[in-house]
Amino acid sequence: MTISISTRFDFRLDAPTDLILQFEAAAIPEQAIRSARTSMTCGDDCVRVPAHEAIGERILVHAEGRFEVAYEATVDVNRLAPELAGLEQLAPHDLPGDPLEYLLDSRYCPADRLQSFAEDEFGGTSGGDRIVAIHDWIAQHFTYEPGSSTPTTTALDSFVERRGICRDYAHVLITLARASTIPARYVSCFAPGVEPPDFHAVAEVFLADRTTPGGGAWYIVDATGMATPGETVKIGVGRDAADVSFLTSFGPSHFGDKSVTVTRAG
Amino acid sequence: MTISISTRFDFRLDAPTDLILQFEAAAIPEQAIRSARTSMTCGDDCVRVPAHEAIGERILVHAEGRFEVAYEATVDVNRLAPELAGLEQLAPHDLPGDPLEYLLDSRYCPADRLQSFAEDEFGGTSGGDRIVAIHDWIAQHFTYEPGSSTPTTTALDSFVERRGICRDYAHVLITLARASTIPARYVSCFAPGVEPPDFHAVAEVFLADRTTPGGGAWYIVDATGMATPGETVKIGVGRDAADVSFLTSFGPSHFGDKSVTVTRAG
Amino acid sequence: MTISISTRFDFRLDAPTDLILQFEAAAIPEQAIRSARTSMTCGDDCVRVPAHEAIGERILVHAEGRFEVAYEATVDVNRLAPELAGLEQLAPHDLPGDPLEYLLDSRYCPADRLQSFAEDEFGGTSGGDRIVAIHDWIAQHFTYEPGSSTPTTTALDSFVERRGICRDYAHVLITLARASTIPARYVSCFAPGVEPPDFHAVAEVFLADRTTPGGGAWYIVDATGMATPGETVKIGVGRDAADVSFLTSFGPSHFGDKSVTVTRAG
Amino acid sequence: MTISISTRFDFRLDAPTDLILQFEAAAIPEQAIRSARTSMTCGDDCVRVPAHEAIGERILVHAEGRFEVAYEATVDVNRLAPELAGLEQLAPHDLPGDPLEYLLDSRYCPADRLQSFAEDEFGGTSGGDRIVAIHDWIAQHFTYEPGSSTPTTTALDSFVERRGICRDYAHVLITLARASTIPARYVSCFAPGVEPPDFHAVAEVFLADRTTPGGGAWYIVDATGMATPGETVKIGVGRDAADVSFLTSFGPSHFGDKSVTVTRAG
Repeated sequence: MTISISTRFDFRLDAPTDLILQFEAAAIPEQAIRSARTSMTCGDDCVRVPAHEAIGERILVHAEGRFEVAYEATVDVNRLAPELAGLEQLAPHDLPGDPLEYLLDSRYCPADRLQSFAEDEFGGTSGGDRIVAIHDWIAQHFTYEPGSSTPTTTALDSFVERRGICRDYAHVLITLARASTIPARYVSCFAPGVEPPDFHAVAEVFLADRTTPGGGAWYIVDATGMATPGETVKIGVGRDAADVSFLTSFGPSHFGDKSVTVTRAG
Repeated sequence: MTISISTRFDFRLDAPTDLILQFEAAAIPEQAIRSARTSMTCGDDCVRVPAHEAIGERILVHAEGRFEVAYEATVDVNRLAPELAGLEQLAPHDLPGDPLEYLLDSRYCPADRLQSFAEDEFGGTSGGDRIVAIHDWIAQHFTYEPGSSTPTTTALDSFVERRGICRDYAHVLITLARASTIPARYVSCFAPGVEPPDFHAVAEVFLADRTTPGGGAWYIVDATGMATPGETVKIGVGRDAADVSFLTSFGPSHFGDKSVTVTRAG
Repeated sequence: MTISISTRFDFRLDAPTDLILQFEAAAIPEQAIRSARTSMTCGDDCVRVPAHEAIGERILVHAEGRFEVAYEATVDVNRLAPELAGLEQLAPHDLPGDPLEYLLDSRYCPADRLQSFAEDEFGGTSGGDRIVAIHDWIAQHFTYEPGSSTPTTTALDSFVERRGICRDYAHVLITLARASTIPARYVSCFAPGVEPPDFHAVAEVFLADRTTPGGGAWYIVDATGMATPGETVKIGVGRDAADVSFLTSFGPSHFGDKSVTVTRAG
Repeated sequence: MTISISTRFDFRLDAPTDLILQFEAAAIPEQAIRSARTSMTCGDDCVRVPAHEAIGERILVHAEGRFEVAYEATVDVNRLAPELAGLEQLAPHDLPGDPLEYLLDSRYCPADRLQSFAEDEFGGTSGGDRIVAIHDWIAQHFTYEPGSSTPTTTALDSFVERRGICRDYAHVLITLARASTIPARYVSCFAPGVEPPDFHAVAEVFLADRTTPGGGAWYIVDATGMATPGETVKIGVGRDAADVSFLTSFGPSHFGDKSVTVTRAG
C-alpha cells in the first residue's frame, strides 16, 4: 500500500530553547520512502541523529521565535500483519536483550501497578490471545474523546477515566501488555482513517515469530481500531510518548496550528 | 580503593513468577572485580544478559517459593572524580546519541514538570555549576528518612515532601538535571558509609570532558552526600530505578530479610 | 448486641505539636455507651469539641514527647439494618441539605474521575441495587492486604491496584457511590471480626427511607464484608479518612504500638 | 464600594443529568445585594438550598440539552480588611468548632504533604506574618497562565509546576496555610480587575480578631494579587473548588461560552 503524507505545524519560542523534533517517516525495511521533502525554519542548521532503536531520526534544534515545519512524503508500506491470536509469548529469559527493556515501567506506563488487574481480568489467556483480549477490553470500555487528556496524562489516569486519544489508548495497551510480561512499545506514526486527522500512535508487542523457531517479532496493535498495520507509516518507537514525541521542548513553547493529511495513494 | 561487599536477601513467591535480578558489581574499566561469588536458589538455572548500556548483567529467573541470594565480592575502584564546578554542559545537538535518551522523562523522573522550578531556582547557572547548585539545594532542604517513601514514590512526590532515601534523592537530582537540559541517569551501587547499610543509589550527569575537546563524560553525584565517587561500586545504570532495581518481579513477591555490608578493604 | 472495646496506642513527638484525636465510641441514639474510660498522657488537659456532624468528639491536644492513649468501653448497638436492595436513591434536588455535601469530591474520594466507569460497569442499576452491585464488584475484584497502602493512598490508587485495607475499601465504595450520584460518607468504627484486629472503617450511603415518605436515611455498608451494621460501633463520620482519622498530627509524629480488641459481650 | 456584575454561560448535556450550580452573589452581612436578576433554562423549576456554611445558595437542577444561565447584580461591599501582618493564629484547641474543619486535607489541598516544606520555608513566622510570607512566596515564584491547569489539577501539581490560574493560586495558599496549622478555605467570587475577566477565586484564613479577645475571624487573601478584599463579592465558600464550583455535573457536560463582566459602579 502506498501512503501519501502531508503535515504542517508551527510554534513559538519566547526565549532561545533546545528542541527535539521527530515527525518524518522512518526509513526501515518494512516501509520504503519513495519521496520526501522536509522544510523547517532552521533550514540546514539542524543536527540529525538516529532515534530510539535506530528507527527514524531525531532532529535537534536550538531556536527562538516562530518556528515552522512542513513535511510531504510518499511511502510504500510492506508489512506482514498476521493474526495475533494464537501467537505465544516468550518468557523473559527467552527474550533477546532489546525487547527486555520494554517490560519495564516508563513515564506514562507504570505497569507494575496494573499487574493485579491484568491477572484478574485477563487471567487464563497469554501471548497473542491476551493482547487480543486487552485490545477488545479497551475497545469495549473506552471512549475516544479529543481534548479529554493532556501531555501529563498517564496510562493510570486513562485507566481510571476510561477515555482519551490515540496516545492514551496506546499507553493503556502497552501498560497492560507489560503487566502481562509481554514486551510492548510505543509507535508514533501516520495512518489514513484517523479521525480527526492527526499524528497517530499505536502499540507494538513482542511475541513469538511462527516463521523462526525460538525467535520473536514486533507486531503492531492499534487499540483505537482506526489504523491497520498494513497502512501504518512508522515515525519512531520508544518506551512511551516521552521517547518519541513529535516535539520535545526544553523550555516553554506555544503551539500554533497543525494540519495532518494522510491518504491511500494506491 | 578496594571495596569489600557482602549481601544476602531472600523473598517468597506464592506462584511461578518471572524475575529480573541485578545486584552484582559490574565489570567495567573503572572498577576491577578482584573476586566475586554469587549463590542463588536457582543455581545455574538462570539466564544472564547484559544490562542497560552493557553495564553489569541482568539475571532472568522463573521461580516459585522461597528464593535466596548471597553475594560476596572484592572490587578495586579506579575512578577519576574531578570537581564538577566549572564543567560546561553540552547542547543537545552536540551530544553523542546515547546521552540524549537521558534528557527524556522516565517513570520516576518526569522532568518536564520541573522546568519552571529549575529555571526559577537555579537560573544563571549551567553545567557543573548547576549540578553543584542542585546538589546543595537538595542537601539543604531534604531529610534522609528511611521508611518515608515507597516503590511508587516519584521525584515529584519527593520534591513535595522534601524527604526520602537514596533512591528518592537520586531521582530528584536526575529530574532537576534533565529539567536543566543536562543528561542524567540512575546508578545502583554499593558504597561504604551508607547509613543504614543497604544497596545505594546515586546519579550520573553528562558534562563536558576537559581532557577531550568537544567530548563529554558521565560524572557521579551522590545527592545524599554519603558516598564518594572513588569508593562507589556500580551495579548498573538506567533512566531511573525502574531500569535497575535489584529485584523486578512480574507478579506478587514477599520480601524477607536483607543485609548489605560494604567496607573499605585497603 | 453489646460490644466490648479495648484499645491502646502510643506515639512520639520530637517537637511540640498540635494533634486531633478521635478514637472513642460516639454517643448517638443508635448506640448506647454503657461504660467508657479514657486515659491519655494529657490527662484532663485536653479540649473536646463535637466532631463532624456532631457524631463523636474530637480531642485537641498540644503535646511533646511520648504520648499514650488507653480506652475501654462497653456499647449497646441497636441499629436497624434493612436490606439495601430495592431502596431508591434520592435525586440531588430531593436531598435534605446535609447529605448533599457527601456527593462532592474529597481528599481520598475524587468521584468525578470515576463517573464513566460507574456508568459503564453499573449502568442499569440505581439506589440500593447499585450499592449492592458496587459492594459485590469490590468483593470480587479486591484483595485485603495489610501493608499494601499508605496514608496518602487515594481511592483511585486502590481502584488501579485492586487491593488495600478497610480504609481503602471504604474509599472505593464511597467514590463509586458518589460517582453514581448517591451521597456517601466515611465511618471510622470498632467492630468484632475484623482481621487482623484494628480500628475499622466502613461506608454509609444515603438512600430512601421506606418508613418515611420522601425521606432518607444513612445505611452502613462494609465493603470488606468483615463487619455487620448491627455490631458496628461508630467513632465518627466524615467525607473520608481525612476528616475522621484517629490521629491527625500537624507536624511529624512517630507511631509506636497499637492494640485493638473488640468482642461481642452478649 | 458598589460592584456591578454581569455573567452569561451555557453548556450542553447529552443525557438527563443532575447539576449543582452556584454563581450568584451571596446575601451576607458584609455585602448587600442591591439588585439581582437570574435567568436560567430551568426557569422556576430549580431547587435552591443554602450552600456551604450558609453562604450563598446552591441551585439543584435535573436537565438535558442546552442550558443557559444569565445573571446580573449590583452589590454594595462593606468589608473590613485589616493588615494581616501581626495578627496571631489560634491554636487548634482555641478554635471555635467550625474553622477546625478547614485545617483538614481536602480534594485539591492535601496539606499534610507540604508540612515539611512549610516549616522549612516559612519557619520562624506564624499567624498573619506567615500568611503574608506565603502570599509573597507565591507572588514571587508563580506565573499566572490561563490554560496551564485543568479541573483535576491539585495544589501539589501547581506547587510542582509553579503556574496556574486563580483557582490554583488559592489552592496553594490554602494548602500552605493548613500545613502551618492555620484554617483556610476557598472563596469563589466576583471581583473587578481580574484579567482575563472570569469568575475569580481567593482564599480566606482564620486568624485572631483584634477587636474580640480570644476570638477569631476570616480574612480574605488573594494569592494572585488581582483583587482587593474591599471589592470582592463572595459567591460561596468551601474547603476547596470541589465544594463551590459554579457548575458541578454528575455526568458528562460540554461547556460552551462564558462571559463575565465585573465593574466598579461607584
